[in-house]
Amino acid sequence: MNVSAPQFNVTRVDGGVTAARGFRSAAVASGIKKKAGALDLAIIAADSPVTAAGIFTTNLAQAAPVLVSKQHLDASGGVARAVVVNAGCANACTGDQGLADARRMTTEVAAGIGCDPSHVVVASTGVIGVALPMDKVVAGVAQAVVALSRDRGSDTALAIMTTDPFPKEHAVQVETATGTFIVGGTAKGSGMIEPNMATMLGFLTTDAQVPPALLQRALVESARDTFNAITVDGETSTNDCVFLMASGASGVAIDEESYPALLEGLLAVSRDLAIGIVRGGEGATKLVTVTVTDARSIDDAQRVAKTIANSPLVKTAIHGADPNWGRIVAAAGRSGVLFDINRATVHVGGILLFENGLPHDEASPDAEKHLRGTEIRIDVALGTGGGHRATVWTCDLSAEYVRINGEYRT
Amino acid sequence: MNVSAPQFNVTRVDGGVTAARGFRSAAVASGIKKKAGALDLAIIAADSPVTAAGIFTTNLAQAAPVLVSKQHLDASGGVARAVVVNAGCANACTGDQGLADARRMTTEVAAGIGCDPSHVVVASTGVIGVALPMDKVVAGVAQAVVALSRDRGSDTALAIMTTDPFPKEHAVQVETATGTFIVGGTAKGSGMIEPNMATMLGFLTTDAQVPPALLQRALVESARDTFNAITVDGETSTNDCVFLMASGASGVAIDEESYPALLEGLLAVSRDLAIGIVRGGEGATKLVTVTVTDARSIDDAQRVAKTIANSPLVKTAIHGADPNWGRIVAAAGRSGVLFDINRATVHVGGILLFENGLPHDEASPDAEKHLRGTEIRIDVALGTGGGHRATVWTCDLSAEYVRINGEYRT
Repeated sequence: MNVSAPQFNVTRVDGGVTAARGFRSAAVASGIKKKAGALDLAIIAADSPVTAAGIFTTNLAQAAPVLVSKQHLDASGGVARAVVVNAGCANACTGDQGLADARRMTTEVAAGIGCDPSHVVVASTGVIGVALPMDKVVAGVAQAVVALSRDRGSDTALAIMTTDPFPKEHAVQVETATGTFIVGGTAKGSGMIEPNMATMLGFLTTDAQVPPALLQRALVESARDTFNAITVDGETSTNDCVFLMASGASGVAIDEESYPALLEGLLAVSRDLAIGIVRGGEGATKLVTVTVTDARSIDDAQRVAKTIANSPLVKTAIHGADPNWGRIVAAAGRSGVLFDINRATVHVGGILLFENGLPHDEASPDAEKHLRGTEIRIDVALGTGGGHRATVWTCDLSAEYVRINGEYRT
Repeated sequence: MNVSAPQFNVTRVDGGVTAARGFRSAAVASGIKKKAGALDLAIIAADSPVTAAGIFTTNLAQAAPVLVSKQHLDASGGVARAVVVNAGCANACTGDQGLADARRMTTEVAAGIGCDPSHVVVASTGVIGVALPMDKVVAGVAQAVVALSRDRGSDTALAIMTTDPFPKEHAVQVETATGTFIVGGTAKGSGMIEPNMATMLGFLTTDAQVPPALLQRALVESARDTFNAITVDGETSTNDCVFLMASGASGVAIDEESYPALLEGLLAVSRDLAIGIVRGGEGATKLVTVTVTDARSIDDAQRVAKTIANSPLVKTAIHGADPNWGRIVAAAGRSGVLFDINRATVHVGGILLFENGLPHDEASPDAEKHLRGTEIRIDVALGTGGGHRATVWTCDLSAEYVRINGEYRT
């Protein structure tokens, strides 16, 4: 990349997973969720085989759908025709039966739309340690494959929710010198009453034409600063995954030169979805943006930012609107990243609270006023002269989080 | 060590920091704490210079007393005459003035008892970012040095408390073939209303005769399985330190051969104090003992145990008496330690809940009954065939923790 302005414009457009041309979707109420009539199974299908990329949980405990989807993307060399996803049952810690059930979801979809089963990937979210009700799943798939349309992408955003307080979808149009393409998607976040753990799922589509290797690179790179830059409680689930499919229907071919345009489109969609997950975090009352600058590397910056963002003392202080710079300094100091505390600065809401190893307590009332709001900014400059930076988004830690996660399983 | 039974017996005795011969202590109400008449400054003094060891916070942000005490132990080559400690003000993030104040505390004590200032170490706990009221400190030291006695060790346990719900002291007698010696001590833990962060302080004494290098080794080794094996919320403060002084007054000389007896005595005292810190953790209603076995190394075992012990989802589940093995498996899986989930087992209260990659949900009611108690056991066997193990103690995460730490500073 040179220093001239990028030759593209990114603007928001309506829709989500079917905003990009070449994709259809359908969501049905198959009865997996306990609530009668709740949408709980969705299919996102390309009109023909397209390039596809996926990223998956780093947890050693990986659910059956994660294992099957990885196998399929490997076997197909990054080609897919459809994603099938259900909520209400995570199909995790379900042994050989779980693997067979996840595979059957892909074969049922493949039979329904007429494609190779290895061209179908699968995702699940919900209760763990419980087998899928396969009769309901099979009937739901049959119902969904005949209902695929370009018009009801938002149903998928609803179907993948567990205890998310609101659906999340976003789409943008990227205008480049060689044409315009669309990137859209949906995601669900951290709802865990049902009962077990946060599952982050994301489904992205684009009508740009992108070779598999470049598509995977774009997904990994955009996720680093978006889906991998958010934290509700530092946990990592057994089912996390994000899929990206590229139909090429726009006629815009992405190569090394136009890659920044694809990346920017993906970042715009993924950032909005990721921040939506944090806003809908369990018990969250505030969105907290932690930016660490002047680090020796991006990794260092992200490590410090994540340690601050996951600190229970920082998160409770923010919940209580306490301008407690000491907890921020202490979290940065235990992050494992080397820097000189006496050269570091801490701003809260743009207000300087710590500098030269000393507090600016006279600024506390202004910082407290900022903290009473719902959009909180924490900026920490490490003073290493390194010039690298990272942003992490998180939420506050409330008594409601404890209530949600401390309830008996129902 | 050979496999024969150790040639020593460890039994509990009364007292704390002055249980071992050769030590005196005094605590006074100097006015640093806001509450009138509250003990807040203490001195523990040896009758003559003794060997001494210290371990300190690994946080990059280190308070003035930590920096001064490290310098003094380095300069003296592990010899000390006294420890001075105050509660109510942490003397952290106080710049050059803070360093001068911490040094002055040591010179005032040195002048009062007649020793080299480098033979005095210092610790502080309480509010950070606020300077010590040195007039009160100096007057308090003058009052304490003339009040030193063998009889009121428990006053020191009270003086070092901030919001700890109860004082913590413990002492044991170790009978060996060559004589009997005593190890005693006191500690304070995680009370953070006042306002800033958990500070763990520990003060240990023994009347065994121990060379400085062996004393430091014994302190490091015993702390690994006690003070460094507890966690309330995963935070690390700016002021943490543990000091150990050995007077030799028992006449029992510790060498390589008798080292296990010293270690066992230290472990007994430190374990009791460490568990006391967890029991008194903020908002804690349950003591949770997490033991990880069958790991490839002790480090691996401790890493998995700490990830489980710090998991907000595990801690809230325990608070709600939810036998949520899935959260335990998921925490172990994200710890960064490699093992095969399908070979791992999870027991809660001795009840098998997870094995061969599958849950034993039929045992949930029994596990829930155990979780309704106040002493919780979680055992995870990693199934690596490695044979190493580690235990970590923690507490549950309650809405009260959020309340305590989310309150405005007063």
